[in-house]
Amino acid sequence: MKILGIDPGTRNCGYAIIEKNGSNIKLLEAGLIKIKTKILQEQIMEMTEGFDMIFKNHVIDEVSIEDMFYAFNPKTVIKLAQFRGAISLKILQEFGNFAEYTPLQVKRAVTGNGKADKTQVAFMVKKLLGIKKEIKPLDITDAIAIAITHCQRIK
Amino acid sequence: MKILGIDPGTRNCGYAIIEKNGSNIKLLEAGLIKIKTKILQEQIMEMTEGFDMIFKNHVIDEVSIEDMFYAFNPKTVIKLAQFRGAISLKILQEFGNFAEYTPLQVKRAVTGNGKADKTQVAFMVKKLLGIKKEIKPLDITDAIAIAITHCQRIK
Repeated sequence: MKILGIDPGTRNCGYAIIEKNGSNIKLLEAGLIKIKTKILQEQIMEMTEGFDMIFKNHVIDEVSIEDMFYAFNPKTVIKLAQFRGAISLKILQEFGNFAEYTPLQVKRAVTGNGKADKTQVAFMVKKLLGIKKEIKPLDITDAIAIAITHCQRIK
Repeated sequence: MKILGIDPGTRNCGYAIIEKNGSNIKLLEAGLIKIKTKILQEQIMEMTEGFDMIFKNHVIDEVSIEDMFYAFNPKTVIKLAQFRGAISLKILQEFGNFAEYTPLQVKRAVTGNGKADKTQVAFMVKKLLGIKKEIKPLDITDAIAIAITHCQRIK
């Protein structure tokens, strides 16, 4: 079973594809959809091209996307939320549905601590996947963590 | 030239199609895409079905969507922003681009006063279009106002 995890970001949109076999999980691919422009309409189109590539290269069984939280400044929230809404439609069009987890749920699932920072999440992601080498930037480990969270929730 | 105006709302998504001939404007159609569910993923899909119908019935030349403002409570903002982001992608997919106007710009364009309330906007919309009978609810007159604002900006 292949699970796609998405960390929505208007600059770097992290994604990870994890294969789950029973209780075994393996990282198949992880990376960034790099968003070059600062204009939301163009960012949305760059994002869709990125996901077109992912769905072209992989047959995905489940998708999970990180939910939004309410911090930041209002302008950032509105921009990120619109971007995330566009991702939602793209995934619904390509795939039909997706799971959502809050940052707190993801941190708790991966580290046992809902207040863990991103480096702790990255540390545990590598440990859970048995990966020694560095995975950077943290948008990628976040996306992996979102996929792992979903792995833990499904049978 | 046919202009589609959109007032994004997660309950009632107002739309209006205005025909512009020189300085003459005429209302062709206006209504609501009624969103029945409260679940964002389903709201997004209901919205896309609504726009599929509109684009099936009309050849649109220009699209304008009301921009977001920062009031409300954060949860509402995030939900509405995600919904608006999904509308953005839908319009980009169907149409390629769209104009955006803030509520202030729309109110100023239609009534001359950026602080006008919705009933004033509705009053001026009817006046500008030479319509006598009531248009309700105000999500529809807002959508018409957004289309009129765009009419005034283009040659």
